[in-house]
Amino acid sequence: MKNYKITIEYDGTNYAGWQRQKNGVSVQEKIEDAIFSVTRKNIKIIGSSRTDAGVHAKGQVANFYLDTRIPVSKIPMALNSHLPEDIVILSAEEMPDDFHARYCSRGKSYTYTIMNRKIPPAYLRNYMAFCSYDLDIGKMKDGASYILGCHDFSAFKSSGSSVKTSVRTVKRLDVVKNGDIIKIYIEADGFLYNMVRIIAGTLIEVGRGTYPPEHVKAIIESKDRKLAGKTACAKGLCLEKVFY
Amino acid sequence: MKNYKITIEYDGTNYAGWQRQKNGVSVQEKIEDAIFSVTRKNIKIIGSSRTDAGVHAKGQVANFYLDTRIPVSKIPMALNSHLPEDIVILSAEEMPDDFHARYCSRGKSYTYTIMNRKIPPAYLRNYMAFCSYDLDIGKMKDGASYILGCHDFSAFKSSGSSVKTSVRTVKRLDVVKNGDIIKIYIEADGFLYNMVRIIAGTLIEVGRGTYPPEHVKAIIESKDRKLAGKTACAKGLCLEKVFY
Repeated sequence: MKNYKITIEYDGTNYAGWQRQKNGVSVQEKIEDAIFSVTRKNIKIIGSSRTDAGVHAKGQVANFYLDTRIPVSKIPMALNSHLPEDIVILSAEEMPDDFHARYCSRGKSYTYTIMNRKIPPAYLRNYMAFCSYDLDIGKMKDGASYILGCHDFSAFKSSGSSVKTSVRTVKRLDVVKNGDIIKIYIEADGFLYNMVRIIAGTLIEVGRGTYPPEHVKAIIESKDRKLAGKTACAKGLCLEKVFY
Repeated sequence: MKNYKITIEYDGTNYAGWQRQKNGVSVQEKIEDAIFSVTRKNIKIIGSSRTDAGVHAKGQVANFYLDTRIPVSKIPMALNSHLPEDIVILSAEEMPDDFHARYCSRGKSYTYTIMNRKIPPAYLRNYMAFCSYDLDIGKMKDGASYILGCHDFSAFKSSGSSVKTSVRTVKRLDVVKNGDIIKIYIEADGFLYNMVRIIAGTLIEVGRGTYPPEHVKAIIESKDRKLAGKTACAKGLCLEKVFY
């Protein structure tokens, strides 16, 4: 029995999220089905991040225990031949027994993409949020500066998650404008449920002038979810990388 | 009767191309249907570029003659409310009677996107070509330098188009690598049928070492379509802008 780590890219548009569930097809289920097709074994895989419906990933990581004679270098190709075209295994490696994709993660990075113009996007519409209000990129950068660093992010957490602590360290938070497109790059040692989407929603409020950038400090200190912005839509979010 | 110019963005994935045809739904047809829904008038629109099936556009331009009391500023919104989400009208303006979207064009720009790695893309897979051979970006840039300028591009033209001359001036041709993604930016005073996709296919051959970069000069001089590379796949192509 070996412990395999796989890195996965997927287009989340047509899935009910990462996690296997009764109502809707999940990415996890598709990969477990592919493992079954290849090995005839029913294996449960452990994802580093339970991405929501519509959220994409360029570098999701999962691990699973499997007894197989397939060389590890052949695992991506073997699984990819049984996966739909919106999910691919980028790489596979053998890990020590105690490697756990979620618990061993030392951090993650995400991007959040916003189309900021009057007309909704047609091209790449499933990979970006849409905001028709003029967003002030300077204000968004200022607002982001308060989020950087180590804070209790209770105000940026949706209910439904049970975690020991809401303290996280945001190591990088860049807001970059390129034409009509605004990209938020965020890296932290860990994220609470919906944290990136609530940060994006809050920076959108700051950008459109609902409150001044320095108000973000007060939102963090309040620890009150109701004071932060809306949870920005799922399709703008992409899990870029998981660090170990 | 006024002459309207509209700028259109679309995701070409689900269309049989720009031009109205019997077998399959076209972007042109969808827009003409939307004009009918709004005005109850059967109008033929003239596109600047007859993009193929699967090709995308961020700035396609079309014109049409219409007698309507709808203010020009309201036309995008009126049409968008009758268009599917993969086609949007970005803007509309009134033009002189003799404006013709195709004949008046002074140039166009396109991007061609290639995912260059061992595993096919899942994320954004409908917006890029895939090449598993290692492409040498330096060689591709060198090859591109021979295409820049004014040439007879007969070697880079698919049959099926009837044009007076195959001489075109390529004003810009940049090849840029960002991680696994290679983007080709090309601008010319006009393009022959499939010209960008054949240039992309030829630069892919140069990048993988099938022939040296300087061979591109011989391909151009041959005026022989058979000597150039394959027509690279449609989904990597995006019409960026039409110049007037």
